[in-house]
Amino acid sequence: MSNCKKRWYPRTQIRASMQYVSIEGILQGRPRAVSKALSLVENGDFAAVSELLQELYPKAAGAFVIGITGSPGAGKSTLVEQLAQLYVQQSHRVGILAVDPTSPFSGGAILGDRIRMQELATHPDVFIRSFATRGKLGGLSAAVDDALVVLAAAGYETLLVETVGVGQDEVDIVQTADVTAVVLVPGMGDDIQAIKAGIMEIGDLFVINKADRDGVQKTRAEVEAHLALSPRDSDWTPPVLETVASQGKGIAELESMLTRFRALARSSDWWKQRRLERQRQRIIDLLRTRILDDVVKRAGNLTLDTLAKQVGLRELDPYAAVERLYKDLSLP
Amino acid sequence: MSNCKKRWYPRTQIRASMQYVSIEGILQGRPRAVSKALSLVENGDFAAVSELLQELYPKAAGAFVIGITGSPGAGKSTLVEQLAQLYVQQSHRVGILAVDPTSPFSGGAILGDRIRMQELATHPDVFIRSFATRGKLGGLSAAVDDALVVLAAAGYETLLVETVGVGQDEVDIVQTADVTAVVLVPGMGDDIQAIKAGIMEIGDLFVINKADRDGVQKTRAEVEAHLALSPRDSDWTPPVLETVASQGKGIAELESMLTRFRALARSSDWWKQRRLERQRQRIIDLLRTRILDDVVKRAGNLTLDTLAKQVGLRELDPYAAVERLYKDLSLP
Repeated sequence: MSNCKKRWYPRTQIRASMQYVSIEGILQGRPRAVSKALSLVENGDFAAVSELLQELYPKAAGAFVIGITGSPGAGKSTLVEQLAQLYVQQSHRVGILAVDPTSPFSGGAILGDRIRMQELATHPDVFIRSFATRGKLGGLSAAVDDALVVLAAAGYETLLVETVGVGQDEVDIVQTADVTAVVLVPGMGDDIQAIKAGIMEIGDLFVINKADRDGVQKTRAEVEAHLALSPRDSDWTPPVLETVASQGKGIAELESMLTRFRALARSSDWWKQRRLERQRQRIIDLLRTRILDDVVKRAGNLTLDTLAKQVGLRELDPYAAVERLYKDLSLP
Repeated sequence: MSNCKKRWYPRTQIRASMQYVSIEGILQGRPRAVSKALSLVENGDFAAVSELLQELYPKAAGAFVIGITGSPGAGKSTLVEQLAQLYVQQSHRVGILAVDPTSPFSGGAILGDRIRMQELATHPDVFIRSFATRGKLGGLSAAVDDALVVLAAAGYETLLVETVGVGQDEVDIVQTADVTAVVLVPGMGDDIQAIKAGIMEIGDLFVINKADRDGVQKTRAEVEAHLALSPRDSDWTPPVLETVASQGKGIAELESMLTRFRALARSSDWWKQRRLERQRQRIIDLLRTRILDDVVKRAGNLTLDTLAKQVGLRELDPYAAVERLYKDLSLP
């Protein structure tokens, strides 16, 4: 495929940075084609990804995206792995995206984890990919969104996205999931603090992992107290579940709760509203990428460097520099 | 001040959302004026912040910004507090911005921490502010940048910015600092993993805090091994320091290393280059905010919602939606 010399591939292949992506291969779920498409999404330019998505988007309906978030060390990867194994047993095809820099899926695991991951990674019905941060011009959550479209179009119907629950990028990513599970561990004050900073509001389920440790009741009480105070957009009351992912405990309950959420959500107005808001945000994110890309190209490095120098010398403040760019480029 | 009824304040006051900010008050370092200006930076619209910065930017030269980053629980806040006390003893005026959601400065500390923070917070030469995430249209790092300009203009010459070392936003923030210290704790494999994900490249100093614990040598070896492999833009070799911030140990050494870095940086070409890149990035960030703000206003909620619905029904892919917006708004 990579030796292909043709230059024009209407509706079957996307060319970007010397890389050829087969649309047919993706739709047939061929791992190599999927992998190439994901690289394009991660590194490709706006036009190439746009062309790719145009083909795949209509065929990406019906997948269910489960967001798993929480502090480093909460055991998210193990939970993801256990869930994935359960879904595979149910004959689902499972896609996993690890956006968590501390995730074993991202390549930094201790040996034991690694071996288990390998088993999962080589299963024919599982596709695992770790996602690094996209460059300045793009947004990480936009890249993740596009990657999910690729996986859905490739027939992976259950998609697990693991992110670390700190930082706006991560919150953005989790907000694109159909359902979000926040993973906590007993007795970590830090967790609850991080939760307060934004993750609490977006959790549809709370999972107290490593629930064989002391302090489960205290953590549960803290979560429930917080939930009681948080306004919700839905008639769904987020349950607080307990798991010991390393021993496979509580995973079936988690899976059945996810299924219940999905069934309820499908018939709900708040769910439609949430999805609408999500699509809206996605358009805005893409718009930002596209416009900025254009403007930076048109302004050119020379102008930007000149303005940057003036700002450095305090001849100009940064806002005035932007004003000048606006005028130079005849922007509205 | 808030009862003021005048409608036009050339070059002395900025009006935004019924809030009046006194430029003179900021320049005289009056805490209330500074506080209001920071709120404006955090919540205000582009035009108001632009007006504010126009006045303050030329007067904000000479401050030194120290970025402190690292995993939750690494003791960053205690380190920041100790450094601040040292600088205060040296008759500096110190500004502290906590952008870390898990920081005690942000309001979630256990009692002991809280009391010490209070002492620092009420000191006349110290200004502490926690910074939450700015909405979708802005960028957190742009808001932090502007806040630093406000504090510098108010005469706080030593500025400490604490962020959690996970996520692109946080990396962006730390990159705006004049010098960046990455805080680690002994024996945490997770730390090194997180480091690999991007923080390692931007650390000018590495601090192994809680150095009275086991595993200091191992952590030091890991950091040094990583540093040996990382290409650097400078002739500065990042030192690895040891501290026990809770007991005030190693703080003086850290401070003197920061001073050394500053002295070296001032006369260096790589430093000029780094600052130029920083100003450039700042202009681009602002440009993004400004353009997006404009476009969303002009497109209006109605158009965005209609497009979002079509995307939800898969009549349109998100990239095609953006294309349509582009045409509707006659963007170049």
